[in-house]
Amino acid sequence: MRRIALLLVAVVTLAGVVVSMAPSSGHADGEAAPIFGVKIPPRYRDWRLISVAHEEGNLNDLRAILGNDVAIKAYREGKRPFPDGAIIARLAWSYVPSEENNKAFGRPQSFVAGPPTNGVQFMVKDSRKYASTGGWGFAQFNDGKPADEAVHNTCFSCHERVKDRDFVFTHYAP
Amino acid sequence: MRRIALLLVAVVTLAGVVVSMAPSSGHADGEAAPIFGVKIPPRYRDWRLISVAHEEGNLNDLRAILGNDVAIKAYREGKRPFPDGAIIARLAWSYVPSEENNKAFGRPQSFVAGPPTNGVQFMVKDSRKYASTGGWGFAQFNDGKPADEAVHNTCFSCHERVKDRDFVFTHYAP
Repeated sequence: MRRIALLLVAVVTLAGVVVSMAPSSGHADGEAAPIFGVKIPPRYRDWRLISVAHEEGNLNDLRAILGNDVAIKAYREGKRPFPDGAIIARLAWSYVPSEENNKAFGRPQSFVAGPPTNGVQFMVKDSRKYASTGGWGFAQFNDGKPADEAVHNTCFSCHERVKDRDFVFTHYAP
Repeated sequence: MRRIALLLVAVVTLAGVVVSMAPSSGHADGEAAPIFGVKIPPRYRDWRLISVAHEEGNLNDLRAILGNDVAIKAYREGKRPFPDGAIIARLAWSYVPSEENNKAFGRPQSFVAGPPTNGVQFMVKDSRKYASTGGWGFAQFNDGKPADEAVHNTCFSCHERVKDRDFVFTHYAP
């Protein structure tokens, strides 16, 4: 009996600690973006990497796509549609040649991430809340401020092209 | 007295669990690379993102530089030299045009990560063990197998160019 009590205390203490250590993905900071009401998820910069890309043209950036734990798990298990709670983040930085790296490689070939550019974008899966847009809420923030409604009106019409992949363009880079 | 005993059990139980949950950065998988004896750190694909880059030429890749907790902390705090235990990983994937993205953007501009290429590289900080190479051990693995000694002989001579930044080329992308 005493052992059971001891074990119970240990488990309860443990549960409290585990809860306090859990990522607070239910909370979000700052102003909500229009249409979908998405806020910047806390600590998204700590999320794991899904893949990387380079856009030429006006965008002219190097970008990283990160996922929260739910998104990464779904990617790795090939689970589609993504479960509710999945969030995918798109970060981007200016595409700049690296003189330093070019000297090291002995030829001009190296491009690295400069200052952040083109805002930060998020896709948030909530199949009930965002039922009319494939279960995804979309948001873009420029310098921490939500982009305007016109920008947010363009998200789904483009992502609809990849409806067969649950509206997500990015593939996981192993 | 009983409360103290209960608390003690809880703390001990907790300590056991925390230890078992801790990243086993002391353990590494597979064959050790030549010269520096570095093994592939477990779960490095889960590490946080330091930055991204694109190399043209023979390399022709998109790359991501990830860091373990010690490395990320040092980067964010601007701490140099990096403390012992810091590990930096360089992953790379083939640089491939994305027809799908190009259609979405309405012009050929999008390049994404294809299959992995150019191996995976690591820099491991151990100021005593690697005293003769700036405190860093270097390793490259191709398809999970260490590259040969000749490859490993080229690492430090190149990284020496950025001695003033503790021999690390990559800057942190905020």
